[in-house]
Amino acid sequence: MKESEFFSPYRSDGKLFGFVCVVTGSSSPIGKAVLHELAAHGAANLFACIPTSSTADVGDALLKEMTEVYPNTKVVPYPLDVTDENDTLAFIDNILDDCGRLDVWVCASGLLGPASIEDTGPPQIQKCFEVNTVAPFLALKYARRAMEKTCGKKNYPNSAPKDSPYGSIIVIGSIASTYGGCWGPAYTMSMHAALGVVRSGVAVLKGSNIRINAISPGQIDIGIDLSKFDMRGMSDALPPAQLQSKEAQKANIGLERVGNPIEVARVAGFLASGFSAYITGCNMVVDGGASTMCPLTSPI
Amino acid sequence: MKESEFFSPYRSDGKLFGFVCVVTGSSSPIGKAVLHELAAHGAANLFACIPTSSTADVGDALLKEMTEVYPNTKVVPYPLDVTDENDTLAFIDNILDDCGRLDVWVCASGLLGPASIEDTGPPQIQKCFEVNTVAPFLALKYARRAMEKTCGKKNYPNSAPKDSPYGSIIVIGSIASTYGGCWGPAYTMSMHAALGVVRSGVAVLKGSNIRINAISPGQIDIGIDLSKFDMRGMSDALPPAQLQSKEAQKANIGLERVGNPIEVARVAGFLASGFSAYITGCNMVVDGGASTMCPLTSPI
Amino acid sequence: MKESEFFSPYRSDGKLFGFVCVVTGSSSPIGKAVLHELAAHGAANLFACIPTSSTADVGDALLKEMTEVYPNTKVVPYPLDVTDENDTLAFIDNILDDCGRLDVWVCASGLLGPASIEDTGPPQIQKCFEVNTVAPFLALKYARRAMEKTCGKKNYPNSAPKDSPYGSIIVIGSIASTYGGCWGPAYTMSMHAALGVVRSGVAVLKGSNIRINAISPGQIDIGIDLSKFDMRGMSDALPPAQLQSKEAQKANIGLERVGNPIEVARVAGFLASGFSAYITGCNMVVDGGASTMCPLTSPI
Amino acid sequence: MKESEFFSPYRSDGKLFGFVCVVTGSSSPIGKAVLHELAAHGAANLFACIPTSSTADVGDALLKEMTEVYPNTKVVPYPLDVTDENDTLAFIDNILDDCGRLDVWVCASGLLGPASIEDTGPPQIQKCFEVNTVAPFLALKYARRAMEKTCGKKNYPNSAPKDSPYGSIIVIGSIASTYGGCWGPAYTMSMHAALGVVRSGVAVLKGSNIRINAISPGQIDIGIDLSKFDMRGMSDALPPAQLQSKEAQKANIGLERVGNPIEVARVAGFLASGFSAYITGCNMVVDGGASTMCPLTSPI
Repeated sequence: MKESEFFSPYRSDGKLFGFVCVVTGSSSPIGKAVLHELAAHGAANLFACIPTSSTADVGDALLKEMTEVYPNTKVVPYPLDVTDENDTLAFIDNILDDCGRLDVWVCASGLLGPASIEDTGPPQIQKCFEVNTVAPFLALKYARRAMEKTCGKKNYPNSAPKDSPYGSIIVIGSIASTYGGCWGPAYTMSMHAALGVVRSGVAVLKGSNIRINAISPGQIDIGIDLSKFDMRGMSDALPPAQLQSKEAQKANIGLERVGNPIEVARVAGFLASGFSAYITGCNMVVDGGASTMCPLTSPI
Repeated sequence: MKESEFFSPYRSDGKLFGFVCVVTGSSSPIGKAVLHELAAHGAANLFACIPTSSTADVGDALLKEMTEVYPNTKVVPYPLDVTDENDTLAFIDNILDDCGRLDVWVCASGLLGPASIEDTGPPQIQKCFEVNTVAPFLALKYARRAMEKTCGKKNYPNSAPKDSPYGSIIVIGSIASTYGGCWGPAYTMSMHAALGVVRSGVAVLKGSNIRINAISPGQIDIGIDLSKFDMRGMSDALPPAQLQSKEAQKANIGLERVGNPIEVARVAGFLASGFSAYITGCNMVVDGGASTMCPLTSPI
Repeated sequence: MKESEFFSPYRSDGKLFGFVCVVTGSSSPIGKAVLHELAAHGAANLFACIPTSSTADVGDALLKEMTEVYPNTKVVPYPLDVTDENDTLAFIDNILDDCGRLDVWVCASGLLGPASIEDTGPPQIQKCFEVNTVAPFLALKYARRAMEKTCGKKNYPNSAPKDSPYGSIIVIGSIASTYGGCWGPAYTMSMHAALGVVRSGVAVLKGSNIRINAISPGQIDIGIDLSKFDMRGMSDALPPAQLQSKEAQKANIGLERVGNPIEVARVAGFLASGFSAYITGCNMVVDGGASTMCPLTSPI
Repeated sequence: MKESEFFSPYRSDGKLFGFVCVVTGSSSPIGKAVLHELAAHGAANLFACIPTSSTADVGDALLKEMTEVYPNTKVVPYPLDVTDENDTLAFIDNILDDCGRLDVWVCASGLLGPASIEDTGPPQIQKCFEVNTVAPFLALKYARRAMEKTCGKKNYPNSAPKDSPYGSIIVIGSIASTYGGCWGPAYTMSMHAALGVVRSGVAVLKGSNIRINAISPGQIDIGIDLSKFDMRGMSDALPPAQLQSKEAQKANIGLERVGNPIEVARVAGFLASGFSAYITGCNMVVDGGASTMCPLTSPI
């Protein structure tokens, strides 16, 4: 591998300078944090996907918030049905038309589904699968061709030539992709399946320079954004973040505290960049050490 | 835990004596092998689920084959849509009406789906999820109540009283539940999700005496039954078992040979019985050692 | 694979009929339970290894206890330094001289080591490695040749001809082989390494009919035997089993109860027998579902 | 958590500006790459540990190479017996005396040990455990106290005040920490144990702001440095990197190429920095996707 100078993560103008990126679930706390992280490292274009049901001010607010801080990163709020194959295809065509390239796709949309098995049936499971699993699958299916496209320098700020194929798909899932007790079954099932997308993606992308990885956050504080959190009408059992007791965090988490959205976003920034050039098919657990501490003592 | 004498795995009339069991995918090689294994250990009643599309002779053949060898085990071929919630509920009611108890549920139905991502879209993924994931989910959702039912001795052969709650749900998945390159993405995604059913099942079944476990077979020789294998119109790319070269097996598998359906079925028999009384939430890999041998040498 | 009739797990005289087995750590609760399990299934010879420091009555008591229940299984209490290569070699020679064959080797000896890192230094680590890791390694290194030996029927009770190579090595480790918070670092390190013995064993035993697997018990009640438990002078911090609160068990374990030594032993019996013929390199978690239930809620 | 401005990974003078770091195995290709990576991000002091058996020119060459490129990073070649508790303690005292703080400890020393089990006995195993496992253990045991020390700005270049506890321990192991067929058993055993150090470290470091993580590289090209590679007299069976065939890489690795030392080093840089602030106890697999692609096809 000869690394293109344009993809060197050491460049002083940002490890993601010139990158064209998609972030789904952009109006969620983690999605928004990812937007900030990508822009902070020089991304040129951010397609900030929001639910098609979002009102205009959701996109407007995103645009305003981002543009004030990162004037050289173009942010495009984009209502997208992430579960629809044709919408996804048309969306990718739009990106290539507008920007000539696609480099990063972060799946940050997610659906919790019902908290209990009693409330869970095939329709609820299907909804979770669509948002949590099919959405990343469609990114995997169509990203390769788009990410392999090269192009010259364009006229927008932070633009850079793309002289070789490069791409990174990042599926933000949950510790529920390998553990069982985090939330209801539909969530666990679909998060496991999302990890399956990542693992099958290595073979699908074989021989390309496009990587796919999972991030599995543990308990993340979505703090002041909780009131705006999209419950999607599926469950009224979601325990508000503030109910997560400090005592429970102290007992179960190595770092004895909840994580922040930006701490998840930073990992996405790492996986998007050349700093992770030999990492693909990996499940990056971001849980403050919770899952390695088995709560059993006294073996044998 | 005081183990009921009726569930002692050491009883001379069979470790599963008196058990009432469901086996889905009974007409597949592994499903059939499971029927044999359960009967060989004294099961009283086997509900042998077959696809609703099966012709009458599929069930007849099963019945004949089993009855000849195990005259004391009643086999009931049962056309069941494993993906349908109401069918599953009605089926469980039938079982309790007929037998008074339910002890073991083995999910042995499975759908490969397309071999390539090009042929895979949301409809194919959904079909795989329904058969590979939703079917075990429905077993999990409704089995507890049924398996907690106790009853006295009945009039059928091998009947035994059930004096305490007992149950074992066994999801036969695939090494594709934790690895990525075994088959197409829909298979990998849905097999990961099936493992998610098992893992979320531990919390769902918490405090009951009902266990749920996964079996993840590696390469299994379905030999002479391949011609009867239900391709379900989804793929013509399935490599026939005989095309699996001896050289590949020798290179990749610790035991240097493919496994047999009965070797998978024996593990199901173990998980069904009291021999595995403290095992739940476990993923039993049955692959001849293939997955532990990383094909990389020369570390550092 | 054509299964020898002598290794068929279905034979009515016991799935381990005629087997010659080694059990290290035989005076520990789990070791003793394994002896019972192997004998209950027809094993002909059990070499019950005890520490070389044991007084004569430890062996005498074992012998008496076993002979009363299983008169047809010959039990040989054997003081063995499991960490010594030459002792192990001489021991195996003895077995072959006496019995003509070797079929099963269960590593049930174990050393907890210090509970805290302050008390842990290279000497304590080395002791743990020797008992927990080097002992199974020596079994792996020398078992193959011995287990590949075939022989005719001998004169002792339960003897059977061995007409083809067969062997099963079983390393009883701990959930500490994949988790971090169970006990002190020396225990976790050496238990991880013991799993490394099992995983590297698949390649070492490649192409033979000898299998190697790990059992990873969670919290096991060593109950009335605790007073006799060999603390080996390394730590006075071991929490007695009775201090393990019912509340903690209810909160952390799917089955809401601690396991019993016999429940671990049954898994060893399964792995020893032909019921697990296609299982090698596997880590069988026997923890009542504790490790699959991540104690985190409220993801995203 | 309020992040100190001094640990913000976004500072323009480097995400590791002012850091005082230890790198063991500094004369190995990966160790050297780590030195470069840490310096490139603004580290103030690098203690470059080399074997005590090294001749003076090894350290001199390192010093020269580094100083030319990174004049503001002070590099201290340091002959250290990483397996010796007292040497390690004295070394840490030296660091605190000289620099007032310690922030990062990268364990990049490693010993392959014999390639075959025939050549492997307790002495070879012990050597591997000492270098691969005890060395990181000693870092874990003594790093906390040192990393919790705060200090003001010092007189050396790139110095920064340390106003709050911070630390990152990074254990560079191998894919052999979870797989079995990469090299001889001693390597696999000790690499598993090294992962055990990391996992037990989460509990040891609980409640501190010090993190510990593993990097598990797959096949890495140590290219032109191979001739200088320290074989340590343990094996003459090491396959030179150039013998690793392109065909094998194409078949087994998702990215179809071997990795480079700098690609491992970049991950160490990430783990050292605040970009990974909520990651601890994690095993970061850096293998180009090799381990997720199971070489089995034809499931069921």
